[in-house]
Amino acid sequence: MRTLDALSRVLTARRAAEIQPFEVMEVLGRAQALEAEGRRVIHMEIGEPDFTAPEPVVEAGVRALREGRTAYTAALGLPALREAIAQHYAARYGVEVPASRIAVTAGASGALLLLLALYVEPGAEVLVPDPGYPGYRHFVRAFEGVARALEVDPESRFQPTLAGVQNAWRSATLGLLFGSPANPSGTLLAHGELGRIASFLAERGGLLVVDEIYQGLVYGEAPRTALGLPGDIALVNSFSKYFCMTGWRLGWAVVPEASVRTFEKLAQHLFICAPAAAQHAALAAFLPETIDILEGRRREFERRRDFIVTALERAGLQVPVKPNGAFYVYADCSRFGSDAKRFAMELLEREGVAATPGVDFGVNGTRTRLRFAYTRAMADLEEAASRIARFCAALA
Amino acid sequence: MRTLDALSRVLTARRAAEIQPFEVMEVLGRAQALEAEGRRVIHMEIGEPDFTAPEPVVEAGVRALREGRTAYTAALGLPALREAIAQHYAARYGVEVPASRIAVTAGASGALLLLLALYVEPGAEVLVPDPGYPGYRHFVRAFEGVARALEVDPESRFQPTLAGVQNAWRSATLGLLFGSPANPSGTLLAHGELGRIASFLAERGGLLVVDEIYQGLVYGEAPRTALGLPGDIALVNSFSKYFCMTGWRLGWAVVPEASVRTFEKLAQHLFICAPAAAQHAALAAFLPETIDILEGRRREFERRRDFIVTALERAGLQVPVKPNGAFYVYADCSRFGSDAKRFAMELLEREGVAATPGVDFGVNGTRTRLRFAYTRAMADLEEAASRIARFCAALA
Repeated sequence: MRTLDALSRVLTARRAAEIQPFEVMEVLGRAQALEAEGRRVIHMEIGEPDFTAPEPVVEAGVRALREGRTAYTAALGLPALREAIAQHYAARYGVEVPASRIAVTAGASGALLLLLALYVEPGAEVLVPDPGYPGYRHFVRAFEGVARALEVDPESRFQPTLAGVQNAWRSATLGLLFGSPANPSGTLLAHGELGRIASFLAERGGLLVVDEIYQGLVYGEAPRTALGLPGDIALVNSFSKYFCMTGWRLGWAVVPEASVRTFEKLAQHLFICAPAAAQHAALAAFLPETIDILEGRRREFERRRDFIVTALERAGLQVPVKPNGAFYVYADCSRFGSDAKRFAMELLEREGVAATPGVDFGVNGTRTRLRFAYTRAMADLEEAASRIARFCAALA
Repeated sequence: MRTLDALSRVLTARRAAEIQPFEVMEVLGRAQALEAEGRRVIHMEIGEPDFTAPEPVVEAGVRALREGRTAYTAALGLPALREAIAQHYAARYGVEVPASRIAVTAGASGALLLLLALYVEPGAEVLVPDPGYPGYRHFVRAFEGVARALEVDPESRFQPTLAGVQNAWRSATLGLLFGSPANPSGTLLAHGELGRIASFLAERGGLLVVDEIYQGLVYGEAPRTALGLPGDIALVNSFSKYFCMTGWRLGWAVVPEASVRTFEKLAQHLFICAPAAAQHAALAAFLPETIDILEGRRREFERRRDFIVTALERAGLQVPVKPNGAFYVYADCSRFGSDAKRFAMELLEREGVAATPGVDFGVNGTRTRLRFAYTRAMADLEEAASRIARFCAALA
């Protein structure tokens, strides 16, 4: 898989050459071309809230910039922010965690990168869900680990099961990395099953990495955390989704106590620190007035979910599992043919609605599936729904 | 080298466990303890400008935050910023480079991480200078490469030589990674010798990665770039040092044309993008009024360098090579004993001046050396100079 270009005599490494481009980039490119021609495209392919950071956060960021609080911070982050995050776990989730285990990172991406660098020996296997966030397998592969697909299906709400993990486990398996709420399905792993999986891993000395990047964006039930379950659990989190701070590039990891010092050394060398002003701004993310704003947005996401799930089903798309988290609907278009990529390209071409082909999330049943993100205002979603209905009616 | 902690059954990977802690952290910890006791410490151990971002940059950042320009950007950065960086190379260095080769990154750290992920196969050797920036070997090691020390000495101004590279080159060697201006020595590699090294590597299909993070901080001569030399050259740069934007975590890479697409895919998965508001702010970094401010600061750094080099030599420390870039003086304390770490700890204890022990930069002649950063106002440096003089006089 190494590539040699006529212009270059230096080969790129296999880990890099192997990365398949996102199919959605083709959708996005065509969407931009249509927009350049004056067409209006409703973007439902983007995994990013349409809301920007709440005003208290923005103003705290402004103060940090103007007061010059923009120097390198400690590698693991501002002590006050680590403390605030620890308090957030106590206040919101009723779980105690020492601030010393919180590492502020350059987004959830930085947390994943450092955790995989910390634990993955060459050849070590990490189970990752298929379908799932495509970054997982690339973070594992980056450090010469082997990302092994753990098939997840509608029957288990596209989440891992104890039986599935048990069946997949073998001597070379280091651990399990998965998200809850999940991308692309927007589903949660039930806390009881998560506890059983954690116990199974703990017995085997396995590592459990839970990506809680969509934590807080949960509908119809209280949000939970894997923190406090048995064994060596590392958590990934972020200010990007619930807190609507995507481009600020700020997240955190909760690191097993015994590995904090080693994680810190890696962070010093590979990142120096997370963005400073964003850290100061994030101190305002846990203020009651900020949480009020964010909870209002969460309720708005819930309304959108209820609307769009129903609208997609009425149009003739199936939604095998009703999502209860994040801001995604993972839908099936097999009634209209076997190629969701083609469906997505034609939906864009004819009706100007952009969605993400399922193949970007793996190979397990993904060819007939699409991800719709409800990260648009309700009026746009209503317009999208009627366009999708018209498109499906024309196909039927 | 794997470590097993009683609290944890999951082992950390060798790449992580092997990282030696920075000796300077011990200096810093003791400095903070002294400060907590009310002592005044003059910090000369920190590789960070004492200046914060120029006002036009800060205000551009404030506008970006308030206008909500804080969403994810393209993985390679804002097109306007990539264009501005390309124009900067043309205007300041007289070198043409297409904006398509510029990748905006999360600091120089992000650029180094992505470039090493891009090129280093397991087992591939990368030559890195000793003494040199310690991060280099950890970035190489992170991707299972082998960082091979290339000894650099006062005779070559602590910079690589063609002969040295030729002698070290062997079949497993992928390329050379080094900095100019260099850390810890503050020296530049002469452009002619750099050209000869580039040609040698080009003939062998080797990769040349030049870390130009201190570019622009050059005294007594015009700043240069390795861009435009023959062969596959990747450059690392940053807004941290010359532009005084350390905690903004913004840098860039200039990527060989043939590797840009693969670099982009890695960046998408491992980073998503660099901080958005920082990118908008950095558009103001190339404005004439900003450059005026920065050039004033450069002249101030030059005055400080002239002062502190003379002061250290008068105190009895040797400065084997007068630095002409960055903001470091790499000094030798062998006249006062063979252990610079002990010298640093006692200098701190008795006189409250903090410096970085040479051992943090490698093993080649580093035991008797120290790095002093002149990232303090002149009044502080004058105070530090008299304290150092008193300390050395007491030792002599």
